[in-house]
Amino acid sequence: MSTPQDILQIMLAKDKFTEWLGIIIDEHKVGYCKLHFTVRDEMLNGFDIVHGGIVFAAADSAFAFACNGHGRLTVALDVSISFVKTATAGDQLFVEANEIHEGNKTGFYDVRVTNKAGEIIALFKGTAYRTDRMISPE
Amino acid sequence: MSTPQDILQIMLAKDKFTEWLGIIIDEHKVGYCKLHFTVRDEMLNGFDIVHGGIVFAAADSAFAFACNGHGRLTVALDVSISFVKTATAGDQLFVEANEIHEGNKTGFYDVRVTNKAGEIIALFKGTAYRTDRMISPE
Amino acid sequence: MSTPQDILQIMLAKDKFTEWLGIIIDEHKVGYCKLHFTVRDEMLNGFDIVHGGIVFAAADSAFAFACNGHGRLTVALDVSISFVKTATAGDQLFVEANEIHEGNKTGFYDVRVTNKAGEIIALFKGTAYRTDRMISPE
Amino acid sequence: MSTPQDILQIMLAKDKFTEWLGIIIDEHKVGYCKLHFTVRDEMLNGFDIVHGGIVFAAADSAFAFACNGHGRLTVALDVSISFVKTATAGDQLFVEANEIHEGNKTGFYDVRVTNKAGEIIALFKGTAYRTDRMISPE
Repeated sequence: MSTPQDILQIMLAKDKFTEWLGIIIDEHKVGYCKLHFTVRDEMLNGFDIVHGGIVFAAADSAFAFACNGHGRLTVALDVSISFVKTATAGDQLFVEANEIHEGNKTGFYDVRVTNKAGEIIALFKGTAYRTDRMISPE
Repeated sequence: MSTPQDILQIMLAKDKFTEWLGIIIDEHKVGYCKLHFTVRDEMLNGFDIVHGGIVFAAADSAFAFACNGHGRLTVALDVSISFVKTATAGDQLFVEANEIHEGNKTGFYDVRVTNKAGEIIALFKGTAYRTDRMISPE
Repeated sequence: MSTPQDILQIMLAKDKFTEWLGIIIDEHKVGYCKLHFTVRDEMLNGFDIVHGGIVFAAADSAFAFACNGHGRLTVALDVSISFVKTATAGDQLFVEANEIHEGNKTGFYDVRVTNKAGEIIALFKGTAYRTDRMISPE
Repeated sequence: MSTPQDILQIMLAKDKFTEWLGIIIDEHKVGYCKLHFTVRDEMLNGFDIVHGGIVFAAADSAFAFACNGHGRLTVALDVSISFVKTATAGDQLFVEANEIHEGNKTGFYDVRVTNKAGEIIALFKGTAYRTDRMISPE
C-alpha cells in the first residue's frame, strides 16, 4: 500500500499547474498539508492584485494533497472561499490545510492562506468526495 | 465616464493571468460576461484532470468582468463553487456570468462553467464587494 | 415504487418543523418544489427582522422536497446562502427550488427566496448527498 | 457606549426565535459566543432527524451574538454550512462561534456545532456585513 509520501510523489510527478504556481511543500501528512509560493507578475489580474484563481488554486492544491494522503482518490466537491485581503507580485503566500472530519464518502477541510506578516489572505472551507479508487503508481 | 467596453479594455490590458488562461471574451455588458478557453496540459493536476484552480479562475474572471461593468471597482468577497464534472486537456470550457442582484455595497452573481456538450462542469455563486472607487484609465 | 406525490406525503406526515413554519406547498415534482409561508412574530431575531435560520429552513425544506422526489433518501451536504434583503413579521415569502444537475451520489440545486414584490430575499445553492436507501412508507 | 453584555441583553430581549430554540448562552465576549440547546420533537424533519434549518439557526444565533459584540449592527451576508452528522430529539447540541478576522465593513467567522460526544454535527463559515449603525437600547 502507498504511504502518504508515495502518494504525494505520485501526485506531484504529474501536477503541472501546481508546478507552474511554483509551489513548495513544507509539510505533508495524512489530512494535512502546508505549502508556500511567491506571487509572480503573470499571476495578477487587471487591478494589479493577485488573481482570485491563483489564491484558490494554491489552497485547492493543499486541500488535494491533504485529503488524498488517506490513499483513496479524493476530489473537491464543494468549496467556499472568502477573500479577506489582497496580495501582489513578490508576496510570499503560505497555505495550511487541516482535516476537520473524515467520513466514509466525504471529508471536510479548513484551508487558510496567509502572507509573511501572518495576515489572512483567504479562508477556504472544502468538502471532498472520496471515490472507491485507490491511488497507485501507474 | 467609462463605458462597459472601456472598463473591459482597461481590465484586460493588464490582466496577465486571464491572458495566460487563453480566455476569449464572447460577450460583455453590465452585469454579464460570456467567455471560453481551452484546457492545456499545463493546467492539469496530478490526476490528469483540469486543476480546480483553473476552473475557478475562469469563472472568477467572468465574474469580475461582469460586476465591474457598472464602473465601480468591485472585488470578489465570497464564492461558493461546486465541481460537478471533470474536464481534461483539449476540452473547451464555456463560462457565463449573470448578475442576480446589485445592491449598494454588494452584488450577487451566478456563474456556470459548461463543456462543448453543454454538460455542467462547475457551479459558481459569487458575492462581490463594491468599493467607492471608480474604474478609470491611469 | 413511490411516486413523487407519495414521497411528499410520507415526508410531510412527520415533518414537524416544516409544519411549525406554516409552509404551504404550491407545486412539487421530481427535482422541483415551490412553496410559501408567512413570517410570524416568533420567527424574528433581536433586530425585529426574520431570523436567518427561518429563511434558511424554508429554503432547506423546498430543497429536501425537490431532491427526495427522485425516490432515494437524499440529505443536504453543503449549502451556501446569501442574505440579500431582510423581511419581517407579516411578510409572505416564496421559495422555489430547482435541480441543476443530478449525479449518481450527488445532486445540485438552486433555491431562491423572494417576497411578494418579487424582490430577492436570499440565494441558496445546495449540494445533496444521495444515499442508497429508497423512501417508503413505514 | 454599550458593553458586549449590554448588547447581548438588548438582542436577547427581543430575539423570539432564539428563545423558541431554547438556546442557553454559556459564554459571550467580543467576537465569541458559546451556547447550547436541546433538540425537541417539533424541530425534526420528515426523516426523524433535526431539520437543517434548526442547526443553521442555532449557529446563526451564535454568529450574530459574536459579531454584534463589537457594538456596530452587523448582519449575516454569506454563509456556507456543511452537514457532517445528524442529530435527533433529545440530543444536546453545542455551538461555538469564533471571529477569524474583523475588517472595516466585513467580519469572518467560524462556527461549529457538536454533540455531547464531541462529534461534529455541522461546520458553518460566515461572512458578516457591518453596518454603520450602533446598537443601543431603544
